[in-house]
Amino acid sequence: MSKKEIWIDEIHKYTRYGIRGQLLIEKKSKFQDIKILKTKAYGNALMLNNCWMTCDENEKYYHECLVHPALTSSNNISNILIIGGGDGGTARECLKYKEVQNIDLVEIDEEVLFLSKKYLTSIGEKVWSDKRLSTNICDGFTWIKNIKTNYYDVVIIDCSDPSEFSNELFTLEFYRECKRVLKFDGIFATQSESPESFMPIHIEMCKSIKKIFMRSATMYGFVPFYPSGIWSWTFASNNENQFLKTHYKDVKSIEDSCEIWNLNYQEGSFKMLPNKLAKLI
Amino acid sequence: MSKKEIWIDEIHKYTRYGIRGQLLIEKKSKFQDIKILKTKAYGNALMLNNCWMTCDENEKYYHECLVHPALTSSNNISNILIIGGGDGGTARECLKYKEVQNIDLVEIDEEVLFLSKKYLTSIGEKVWSDKRLSTNICDGFTWIKNIKTNYYDVVIIDCSDPSEFSNELFTLEFYRECKRVLKFDGIFATQSESPESFMPIHIEMCKSIKKIFMRSATMYGFVPFYPSGIWSWTFASNNENQFLKTHYKDVKSIEDSCEIWNLNYQEGSFKMLPNKLAKLI
Repeated sequence: MSKKEIWIDEIHKYTRYGIRGQLLIEKKSKFQDIKILKTKAYGNALMLNNCWMTCDENEKYYHECLVHPALTSSNNISNILIIGGGDGGTARECLKYKEVQNIDLVEIDEEVLFLSKKYLTSIGEKVWSDKRLSTNICDGFTWIKNIKTNYYDVVIIDCSDPSEFSNELFTLEFYRECKRVLKFDGIFATQSESPESFMPIHIEMCKSIKKIFMRSATMYGFVPFYPSGIWSWTFASNNENQFLKTHYKDVKSIEDSCEIWNLNYQEGSFKMLPNKLAKLI
Repeated sequence: MSKKEIWIDEIHKYTRYGIRGQLLIEKKSKFQDIKILKTKAYGNALMLNNCWMTCDENEKYYHECLVHPALTSSNNISNILIIGGGDGGTARECLKYKEVQNIDLVEIDEEVLFLSKKYLTSIGEKVWSDKRLSTNICDGFTWIKNIKTNYYDVVIIDCSDPSEFSNELFTLEFYRECKRVLKFDGIFATQSESPESFMPIHIEMCKSIKKIFMRSATMYGFVPFYPSGIWSWTFASNNENQFLKTHYKDVKSIEDSCEIWNLNYQEGSFKMLPNKLAKLI
């Protein structure tokens, strides 16, 4: 495609966040518009339905915070489900743990997987050839309905913002299924949108997850690549605040492998609830 | 000026953060370009030298975090210096404390003060008529050089990003003056830029402040209105981590008056140092 540099913006009503670069890919899959921009700011960047999703050089703020609070706190981590996560970043963080034996990655859009493998190579790195990872083209709701009860140690939802094809992943019924397929002492983790740019969805998600699981809590942190810069990740379990207790014996090696996350950062992140949000959740 | 809605962007090399609105003011003062945009996203928004500075409806993330860690931890808060802060937000937060008897607000640019009083009324609120506030049109460096030693209880730097006319506010010599005019148990507070969008300046500031004061620490938090969304505030003292100890007896009433800040948020914010930054500071 064109080698000319252009601005591509994610627009939220009256604000926009733009990145300048060369458009490598612009296509329509069965589910969404896909763009890949080659940028000097962040390497290659993926946009789905006009929202920035991920990029080579600024994705660790997001992926590390989605994975490590769950994997360092779960009693067992051998069998993991990732719904979404077609760029491979979430799987990459999970595969750092030698105790992980199986990951079912369930991505609805084949094109996202294909293009991520080809253009976002520094995100997926070597995950695609790791024998512990099984990739499945399927919608997350259908997949989880067909899984037996108490099957996974950790369930991670790494989906895009709500849209016609992903709306089901934001329902009480879906969270109930997540709880069902989790082992009793398992951990549920989900990206939970921006409390600024997507405040109503964020609040709804927090409330819904709270209804289904015995305990839940939200981390607020930085994703400079997303509009507003604030993002959130919500964790839940059926054990007393399981997700706040670090069990993993070699947590130091995980911290050392991370660009952003460490236990102190995580602890801070669970505290960063602005007053105005506390009143609404 | 024009009632047509336009996009105005803050551009950082290959990224941009834009807001849509009607341009109310566009002028050049002695020191800088000034724009005020009437926006549906954030109310009236102030841009200086093409950088977003503040806006009616998203400024509390910034001002509350600059003021309350300092004022709740200082033994005395009767006499305060604010350098910059022409929009009135920092003074407004300080004036919540009935123990504050005098604030010297030192703003270099008369136009910023004038336009803030006229167009950013929800930021300054009633501060301009509060008898405890004295506004002075003067550059911060000249002002502080003429102040006697051990004069202020709290010194707050609320300046814009480094530029030809503000560069002096980022030097060792300036921080040395701040230390000199502070009482021995006083607190120094400064905005310290974005560790993403202005990383080299941020790192330099942290290192310089550390050189001059006995103790210093940096809070990382959200300012959705600024590019990257991450901002930082650095606090320093000549007493053993003075700024981490909350002395103020009625801290609950301050928390209740805030939209974002509370002690828990502050505690989290001091922990949110990403690994990659920890290695550089």
